[in-house]
Amino acid sequence: MVDKKLTGAGLRGQSAGETKLCTVGKSGSGLTYCGYDVSDLADNATFEEVAYLLFNGELPNQAELDAYKSELKSMRDLPDALKSVLKLIPKNAHPMDVMRTGCSFLGNLEPENSFAEQNKAANRLLAAFPAIMCYWYKFTHDGVEIDCTTDEDLLAGHFLRLLNGKTPSEQHRKVMDVSLILYAEHEFNASTFTARVCASTLSDMYSCVTGAIGTLRGPLHGGANEAAMDMILKFKSPKDAKVQMAGMLERKEKIMGFGHAIYRESDPRNVIIKRWSEKLAQENGNTSLYDISVACEEFMWDSKKLFCNADFFHASTYNYMGIPTKLFTPIFVCSRLTGWAAHIMEQRSNNRIIRPSADYIGSEPRKVIGISER
Amino acid sequence: MVDKKLTGAGLRGQSAGETKLCTVGKSGSGLTYCGYDVSDLADNATFEEVAYLLFNGELPNQAELDAYKSELKSMRDLPDALKSVLKLIPKNAHPMDVMRTGCSFLGNLEPENSFAEQNKAANRLLAAFPAIMCYWYKFTHDGVEIDCTTDEDLLAGHFLRLLNGKTPSEQHRKVMDVSLILYAEHEFNASTFTARVCASTLSDMYSCVTGAIGTLRGPLHGGANEAAMDMILKFKSPKDAKVQMAGMLERKEKIMGFGHAIYRESDPRNVIIKRWSEKLAQENGNTSLYDISVACEEFMWDSKKLFCNADFFHASTYNYMGIPTKLFTPIFVCSRLTGWAAHIMEQRSNNRIIRPSADYIGSEPRKVIGISER
Repeated sequence: MVDKKLTGAGLRGQSAGETKLCTVGKSGSGLTYCGYDVSDLADNATFEEVAYLLFNGELPNQAELDAYKSELKSMRDLPDALKSVLKLIPKNAHPMDVMRTGCSFLGNLEPENSFAEQNKAANRLLAAFPAIMCYWYKFTHDGVEIDCTTDEDLLAGHFLRLLNGKTPSEQHRKVMDVSLILYAEHEFNASTFTARVCASTLSDMYSCVTGAIGTLRGPLHGGANEAAMDMILKFKSPKDAKVQMAGMLERKEKIMGFGHAIYRESDPRNVIIKRWSEKLAQENGNTSLYDISVACEEFMWDSKKLFCNADFFHASTYNYMGIPTKLFTPIFVCSRLTGWAAHIMEQRSNNRIIRPSADYIGSEPRKVIGISER
Repeated sequence: MVDKKLTGAGLRGQSAGETKLCTVGKSGSGLTYCGYDVSDLADNATFEEVAYLLFNGELPNQAELDAYKSELKSMRDLPDALKSVLKLIPKNAHPMDVMRTGCSFLGNLEPENSFAEQNKAANRLLAAFPAIMCYWYKFTHDGVEIDCTTDEDLLAGHFLRLLNGKTPSEQHRKVMDVSLILYAEHEFNASTFTARVCASTLSDMYSCVTGAIGTLRGPLHGGANEAAMDMILKFKSPKDAKVQMAGMLERKEKIMGFGHAIYRESDPRNVIIKRWSEKLAQENGNTSLYDISVACEEFMWDSKKLFCNADFFHASTYNYMGIPTKLFTPIFVCSRLTGWAAHIMEQRSNNRIIRPSADYIGSEPRKVIGISER
């Protein structure tokens, strides 16, 4: 929700429908999922509980959560045909193209035959995305065909285990779980809106999610944490960061990970992930990456009054856990899928096809001239 | 363009941007591409000229058209890895899932590395889509691995040749070419709007088109000609058609291929494709399918004042050319790609990320309760 209605390009400030799922910036900085503050969820729930909440409107009780986790666990492996497709994708492909293709291909093998299967399809993608990402990555980068199943209890640990081939620490499991919660849902952002437009023709779950992945791929949407990482790695020290950033501002270079289209004062996700980045820095012993990140935050606030958004401290956080930078946006997919799928279900429950109009600014009516006279 | 602005669901009547590409229903029934009436283009241009027009804003002269056709011809074959993927897709898959996956996979092999390559990427998809559709279809249905290249001059003939394995008649080439022109572009329909939302994050051409295919897949958008075909095939005669349709209306069953969200009096594409359906009926000798279609048209007008839209006579037209019903919507993809790509280019040329707001109707703020107390 924005404070004042704006007209003009990008539908900014224009309502495109109703939702029960989320508020963004309602009191300047808040983010709620189904009425719960995201920081409350990050402190007191797991990502599986948040997924259940978004798909069902209420948090699960213990029996419901146990059943849900066991359903998700049973859906983690990939069909052989999908593994074959992933092996055909080159190493230098864009990882978001891999996610988009993996999702689309799976829709051929296990189609959502009716909307009665929508939860099954959403859960299947939720359970399978970590393996789609890691199977391709490990095969093309390390020449290893990984086992796509693990006995990890939660998706966060499952992903880390697939990626690193070893049992993750309790702290890493917790940080990844929190990260997945923070990225899960964000109202009518561009990828979610794509999912809803697609859903409004009554298309299937796989089509809607495939379109959303393609939209998140754009550098104006996903990818900010990757860009932040690339920048931070260029800085040698907190002091060097401030000097170099001053130069970037002077050259009017784009600095990613700061400010937000809707939040005005702060991004409620930043304080949470920043705290975890600090803990990982202490665990690691080398706090340089965290210290540099803090210097960046200070510099951008002092010079431009711009705050860190959710992406900025995600960069150092993921890096401390040994996650390759090119997988940052695919992790975003693994998380945001929950929001996308919940919006798809919501769109279906009260649907009208989304078909806006356009203002015509083109040529006046004209007649086709024979090609020899053109 | 609509006559009056409406508010409410589906963004109906709300402008979501500007376009130079198309007017729909501006004077009640018209459809123009870049200022040219679609019937003028259908009579006096080829689909390749229309594609060139949409991508460049002007019809080509002879030298430009020759160069363009020869570029498209050189891009018709599929990479071996893509053929392997298509062979892994089951015979009973939804053909639109095949198109979506083929498009997405090709984006891994031949990414659009910068917007300077946007025409190349759009032309590549334009040239390759007939082979993506036919290679999968012929392999899974007939066990044949077809050669994806032909010496057909135009895309219309190329497609028919790939599908039927023999040189098409001049009349069939012409009808398919007209059909591709009629479906090429239609302003901010749902699939095109998806392409623009995706493009607005500055994502790549393959992502945008993949999302658009997924949106066209929905039964409220593409697929009306397939549904019309299924219905027509159930009718034994013109008289039987009227009796059975009366029953369908009485039972409030949905009848596809009639009426339109924007056109009020008629669909300008119907008179064109209907004429070709009649010619094909005469060529065939058995005019039953055409006669039944005409009876349906009369019945719907007499009883509901509903007119045939572009899809209705496409059903008999495609059927007379021996095209399997399940490929009707994929042909729509081969055509509409031109409109999608033109809108993607237009969105990029004056971009703001498309990010509307939502009206929140969900739960009041609440606190997470411990799982044992839920």
